[in-house]
Amino acid sequence: MARQDGYEKEFVKEITPQSVDYSQWYIDVIQKTEMMDYAPVKGCMAIRPFGFAIWERIQELLGARIKETGHENAYFPLFIPQGLLQKEAEHVEGFAPEVAWVTKGGDEVLAEPLVVRPTSEAIICDFYSRWIQSWRDLPLLINQWCNVVRWEKSTRPFLRTSEFLWQEGHTCHRTEAEAEEETLRMLEVYRDFIESDMAIPVIAGRKTEQEKFAGALRTYTVEALMSDGKALQAGTSHNLGQHFAKVFDITFLDQDGQLKHVWQTSWGVSTRLIGALIMVHGDDRGLKLPPRMAPIQAVIVPIISKQAREAVLAAAGALAEQLKGIVHVKLDAREEYSPGWKYNEWEMKGVPVRIELGPRDLEKNQAVLVRRDSGAKEAVPLGELPVRLPLLLEEIQRDMFAAALAFREANTHTGSDYRHFAEVMENERGFYLAAWCGREECELKAKNDTKATIRCIPFNVKAESDRCLVCGEKAAETVYFARSY
Amino acid sequence: MARQDGYEKEFVKEITPQSVDYSQWYIDVIQKTEMMDYAPVKGCMAIRPFGFAIWERIQELLGARIKETGHENAYFPLFIPQGLLQKEAEHVEGFAPEVAWVTKGGDEVLAEPLVVRPTSEAIICDFYSRWIQSWRDLPLLINQWCNVVRWEKSTRPFLRTSEFLWQEGHTCHRTEAEAEEETLRMLEVYRDFIESDMAIPVIAGRKTEQEKFAGALRTYTVEALMSDGKALQAGTSHNLGQHFAKVFDITFLDQDGQLKHVWQTSWGVSTRLIGALIMVHGDDRGLKLPPRMAPIQAVIVPIISKQAREAVLAAAGALAEQLKGIVHVKLDAREEYSPGWKYNEWEMKGVPVRIELGPRDLEKNQAVLVRRDSGAKEAVPLGELPVRLPLLLEEIQRDMFAAALAFREANTHTGSDYRHFAEVMENERGFYLAAWCGREECELKAKNDTKATIRCIPFNVKAESDRCLVCGEKAAETVYFARSY
Repeated sequence: MARQDGYEKEFVKEITPQSVDYSQWYIDVIQKTEMMDYAPVKGCMAIRPFGFAIWERIQELLGARIKETGHENAYFPLFIPQGLLQKEAEHVEGFAPEVAWVTKGGDEVLAEPLVVRPTSEAIICDFYSRWIQSWRDLPLLINQWCNVVRWEKSTRPFLRTSEFLWQEGHTCHRTEAEAEEETLRMLEVYRDFIESDMAIPVIAGRKTEQEKFAGALRTYTVEALMSDGKALQAGTSHNLGQHFAKVFDITFLDQDGQLKHVWQTSWGVSTRLIGALIMVHGDDRGLKLPPRMAPIQAVIVPIISKQAREAVLAAAGALAEQLKGIVHVKLDAREEYSPGWKYNEWEMKGVPVRIELGPRDLEKNQAVLVRRDSGAKEAVPLGELPVRLPLLLEEIQRDMFAAALAFREANTHTGSDYRHFAEVMENERGFYLAAWCGREECELKAKNDTKATIRCIPFNVKAESDRCLVCGEKAAETVYFARSY
Repeated sequence: MARQDGYEKEFVKEITPQSVDYSQWYIDVIQKTEMMDYAPVKGCMAIRPFGFAIWERIQELLGARIKETGHENAYFPLFIPQGLLQKEAEHVEGFAPEVAWVTKGGDEVLAEPLVVRPTSEAIICDFYSRWIQSWRDLPLLINQWCNVVRWEKSTRPFLRTSEFLWQEGHTCHRTEAEAEEETLRMLEVYRDFIESDMAIPVIAGRKTEQEKFAGALRTYTVEALMSDGKALQAGTSHNLGQHFAKVFDITFLDQDGQLKHVWQTSWGVSTRLIGALIMVHGDDRGLKLPPRMAPIQAVIVPIISKQAREAVLAAAGALAEQLKGIVHVKLDAREEYSPGWKYNEWEMKGVPVRIELGPRDLEKNQAVLVRRDSGAKEAVPLGELPVRLPLLLEEIQRDMFAAALAFREANTHTGSDYRHFAEVMENERGFYLAAWCGREECELKAKNDTKATIRCIPFNVKAESDRCLVCGEKAAETVYFARSY
């Protein structure tokens, strides 16, 4: 019953190996798995059902964590009047060069142009200035899931697109300490979600002044290492201080009868997390999804022969029924594709476990489980599958995190010799842990010389040397350098 | 412990009665319950957490039905190049006057202006023309939840806003019959969701040529009656025929070896459903939410006296714990508000059941359940609450649907006398069931004379007269007229 028309061969095309061209490997994977397609507008894309299913997993799992920490969802307008964006000086300077402008509505030229939100601080602060009156209205803890637009010159699917999807939390607090606590709480929510559910180890820390969010007092970040040795900023959490509160006049009457400005935070992760998922775990055969992120956790492939067709299909159907509600399982009973073709397809799509079930397995009353991450096979009695499969998925989840962590550790360098640093950044990449004097001058010199930036100032990590990697002066800070997406 | 600072009095303001000014009643309800707030951009709004929680219920309940019928979610770009929108002639004629135009990105004036999607047929068809090659790719069943923008001249929160949230399904099929089947299947999904979960009775039918979607072959609709006697189009499902397939060249190689154009459908509901929920069920005390749509289904209000404070709070906490996982329950243990103030607030917010628990109830080992819809009270032994409360919620759900249906039936008129019809539309409103000759001329005359439009041509309903209500000629069609939102 295998397809005879050449369609099969056409479909199972080669993915460019990572070692040949990493960028092309990435594009091949996302296009051949039908995760996305390029839009007729430069830098924009459609997220196809297979890619969007991963975003839905992120929304479900991270969304639950955001609600559990006391936040409610809301929706704010897409359009920001020019005047509002311009209120906070650093903010407008950071975002104005990369916004899309609406200048006409219907046939009418607008008196004041509108910005398509690149981020929503300005429009949200305008609302908050009316919603907050009293200390009783605090803390105000709101999140929104939405699309944003940044007119990027150089784009790459999922990693940097002109339009992308994200969540942005925006909170107001009575005191500076509460705002700082919230900023760090949400950073920890991101760290835990990305490590536990996405199996991606991250380094949490603070951004330098140079790299912080336009308008923030302090920006915190979680940084992940892709398998090509480049870092990716996976999520950020900003302590906005009172910068926005002062220009948008967000005040509250405190219990002591004084009118005070609120303290604010904002934090977000976006569809670029999907890019991270691909680049941390993927290999030359395609995607490799950690079980908690996989829309399909196990796929049953019946091995159909002419003699045993009915029996195998019936057993496969019964098995799918039995596993439903225990794991996300799919039965691939298509008869126009061969088992081998299906193995390739589901491996490429990163399904964590393949369940093979053929006439010989039926005789032995077993199925064969094949791990996508390691290729390891095990035969399991059919009756034990509902117990064994969830355990195996947990093992895979753990092993995939461990593998990514081992890769990061093997690719984290350290030292105090600038030439060594430059060589590593040129040839091996990865993270480079070093001391830094804290001067922007040294930060920019490193960037110009090596394309590496300071990814973050980590918590509780200390470089061995106490001399700035760049200038050799006495150094106060420990930082991670890396080239990045 | 009741608040002493006048804040309480200030909060529990009057809502303008429906009989005095229905429009003002609507605005009062949505603002005082903090469902929304007006944006600094005309016709736009923020959906505040309380309003957004209702949209999340719609997404959850309707979203599950959309998936159960075989559709997958995806995400398509916000921006549509002008040239794509212009491809389908009727479509551009319908939408061009009401779109927002992006003409600048960063500092650069765009060579081709972009439209902010008013609906996504044009951009999606562009993708589909590449995704579909073979009959094996059909049916293609995709849905997206997103924001859309229509530059409306006259707006009203939730009902008609320049930006709104919706879902839009876009499907492709091999045959005309399959497309028609899908169009009607999704209309039925809408009908069942709106009636079963939102407790809003609707009339399903076909739109006239005059009222159909710009670019569709046939548009079907579900129409609801608001409590002021005006109709509201609650959802539409379009059979697009091959109009878009031909101009966007969406073809497939069929099993017979022929290259054919696909047959398409699209269908959507939006945040205006929230407006319908308010206007069908609300009363002069505020919102009235059907239990299946209520983010909070029951609120526990402990009646705290100085003597019994600890015991009542402990019992209320234990009750909340006991009911969690059975119904969506909230314990309102705030001590700075009196029980009476809380009753007003939760009634205004439409929570279906209030659970009163005071010292006397504790003595009797009971709580008092108060229905928001009828005001009926019943004392229930604490031990029976986990069984009684879900049943009561089901009763309320049923009774609210029955009440809305009774209202609609009482406000559905019929006849064949045009003057009677005009009088009804002027004074009583409601639906008017009548025969229609099928000519646009009569449809427009009725609209000009009475502001009533043909809401739909219902399935399986026949007017008594066989003469056109407007011209008196022999009539082929039975229709519902109404003024509408």
